[in-house]
Amino acid sequence: MVEPATDTIAATKLVPLLKDELDIVIPTIRNLDFLEMWRPFFEPYHLIIVQDGDPSKIIKVPDGFDYELYNRNDINRILGPKASCISFKDSACRCFGYMVSKKKYIFTIDDDCFVAKDPSGKAINALEQHIKNILSPSTPFFFNTLYDPYREGADFVRGYPFSLREGAPTAVSHGLWLNIPDYDAPTQLVKPLERNTRYVDAVLTIPKGTLFPMCGMNLCFDRDLIGPAMYFGLMGDGQPIGRYDDMWAGWCTKVICDHLGLGVKTGLPYIYHSKASNPFVNLKKEYKGIFWQEEIIPFFQAATLPKDCTSVQKCYIELSKQVKEKLGKVDPYFDKLADAMVTWIEAWDELNPAGAPAKVSNGKA
Amino acid sequence: MVEPATDTIAATKLVPLLKDELDIVIPTIRNLDFLEMWRPFFEPYHLIIVQDGDPSKIIKVPDGFDYELYNRNDINRILGPKASCISFKDSACRCFGYMVSKKKYIFTIDDDCFVAKDPSGKAINALEQHIKNILSPSTPFFFNTLYDPYREGADFVRGYPFSLREGAPTAVSHGLWLNIPDYDAPTQLVKPLERNTRYVDAVLTIPKGTLFPMCGMNLCFDRDLIGPAMYFGLMGDGQPIGRYDDMWAGWCTKVICDHLGLGVKTGLPYIYHSKASNPFVNLKKEYKGIFWQEEIIPFFQAATLPKDCTSVQKCYIELSKQVKEKLGKVDPYFDKLADAMVTWIEAWDELNPAGAPAKVSNGKA
Repeated sequence: MVEPATDTIAATKLVPLLKDELDIVIPTIRNLDFLEMWRPFFEPYHLIIVQDGDPSKIIKVPDGFDYELYNRNDINRILGPKASCISFKDSACRCFGYMVSKKKYIFTIDDDCFVAKDPSGKAINALEQHIKNILSPSTPFFFNTLYDPYREGADFVRGYPFSLREGAPTAVSHGLWLNIPDYDAPTQLVKPLERNTRYVDAVLTIPKGTLFPMCGMNLCFDRDLIGPAMYFGLMGDGQPIGRYDDMWAGWCTKVICDHLGLGVKTGLPYIYHSKASNPFVNLKKEYKGIFWQEEIIPFFQAATLPKDCTSVQKCYIELSKQVKEKLGKVDPYFDKLADAMVTWIEAWDELNPAGAPAKVSNGKA
Repeated sequence: MVEPATDTIAATKLVPLLKDELDIVIPTIRNLDFLEMWRPFFEPYHLIIVQDGDPSKIIKVPDGFDYELYNRNDINRILGPKASCISFKDSACRCFGYMVSKKKYIFTIDDDCFVAKDPSGKAINALEQHIKNILSPSTPFFFNTLYDPYREGADFVRGYPFSLREGAPTAVSHGLWLNIPDYDAPTQLVKPLERNTRYVDAVLTIPKGTLFPMCGMNLCFDRDLIGPAMYFGLMGDGQPIGRYDDMWAGWCTKVICDHLGLGVKTGLPYIYHSKASNPFVNLKKEYKGIFWQEEIIPFFQAATLPKDCTSVQKCYIELSKQVKEKLGKVDPYFDKLADAMVTWIEAWDELNPAGAPAKVSNGKA
């Protein structure tokens, strides 16, 4: 006699979603006390900590977390000359963690991000919401006015083509921030006291053909689907620009997702962003980006990829060529960046040989 | 001595926004008791009531409202043979109201829509929110992850090009519905008990190049900017299809807004949609649309307008040619519809001669 399961609800609640298929990547220069607040949500998962700055500094990780930690010496040792593509003294270094992970999914979060509350006062399990976002399809080809149609209590509205209701695989889930909004230096300077207090209870797909400013503070993605496009560029030490690492990754990722028919969602979950970075320091890092983006964005809006670009790697190499050709004229920095994009893919492929099964990694480095 | 004003706040509160520049258009077949609930918000405005069905029936309008009312006989008298472009026995007839209005803005609402409450329990002045939406710019060229950047407490996020921060003029504000969601007949049949209870506190611009299902239940637009594109097609009596009137208008409008650089917003305000229409009746009206839309939507997604289409009328006439050429193959209905699109523009121009100033109309018809 076949018996139905009786305790599935209890079981789903006890086993954290994707426990063995997701790594949490955290770039940092300090002790990771912020993890205490995340303990109930993050403790079951494996952490990849990318230590930026002085490698001799000891980063303390609260007890009980399963992690591996890489400092600059580790990066140089593992990548050799290809380590040049990984930024130093900038949180862009986090993308090294994406490369060494062997899991299917990555969640990355900044160490000044804490657990936010929903309007009912309940602590938001940001990771759980990201996983929900990424495991359900996206709707990049037509806008649904009731937002994510796969969410409980929602559906596709009248006039939504039935042929599109299966959606597209979701490659990226972009979460938002309560308290300190992700503003650029000029806006920070003009509105020093502005806080984001509006909880918008929505997840939506960014339509095909539309670019968006992707923030790396609270971000989840599918490494298998889009990982090699999540390169955070050359920022920080020795570079003329900072704070555009996640933007760069977002533009490249969105163009490639659009080409490959993958979805990008934004909205829930919120984290609580505790502290605004210094706007004067930010302005110094950003000012070239502020005028470069006026040329970079039209470049990405116009970028098209040939049909034979059927893998993320092929798309990314093609994009690097277009960057060199079209943005090289804007500043020699983009020549260097285009080369680094190629190095990044070479390093990615070295660490992630084709056909290698996603391994469950554990233990400390 | 120059004295500052002291009572501006009181004055703004007392004078309803755009009182002499906005008409409320209501299609109906019954007494308009629903207006009682809207009295505090609608009473200062002029109403245009388009009576559908039997013209001999008397429609009661609650006392105190300023309105003009048109029944089928009026439509036939005013438009003569061109009245053929106005649908009968279908709420698509509402677009006659857009045509006879002399105001800059239109708000249209169904007579089964009531005042909704926000999460704090406060009655939502839907019209006021629409006016806010339409008087502030849209952001069709780049997505802002904190939604409407012009809203209090929000702004453009890091990475948003400064050159795009002036936005584009807003032509359309599409509001949503609590309680009964706007589902098609198959979804109604499958989920008869689903109610929309999620209040999403956001207004966002539908990006350029993205189509959406525009619902005519709770809709505001700028007649000067987009009026002639707001044709609700041939539906109902004598036509093979119903319940696609607003969808048709939405597709045409969005393509033309994209071409002319105008914005379309969706989200707030919510109205309370009281009663689901009969799904069996709806299925009969919709079933051709359900398979036609699989060809109509790719048609509109691919539609481009030549540069010399610099007015809404020119765009619309051009679109009618493309409808005839490309959709005429799908069904002879689209030939007829394409002709009606031309008739609509002729009738529009007759009633709205070029250069005529927007007049303040009042009194009952």
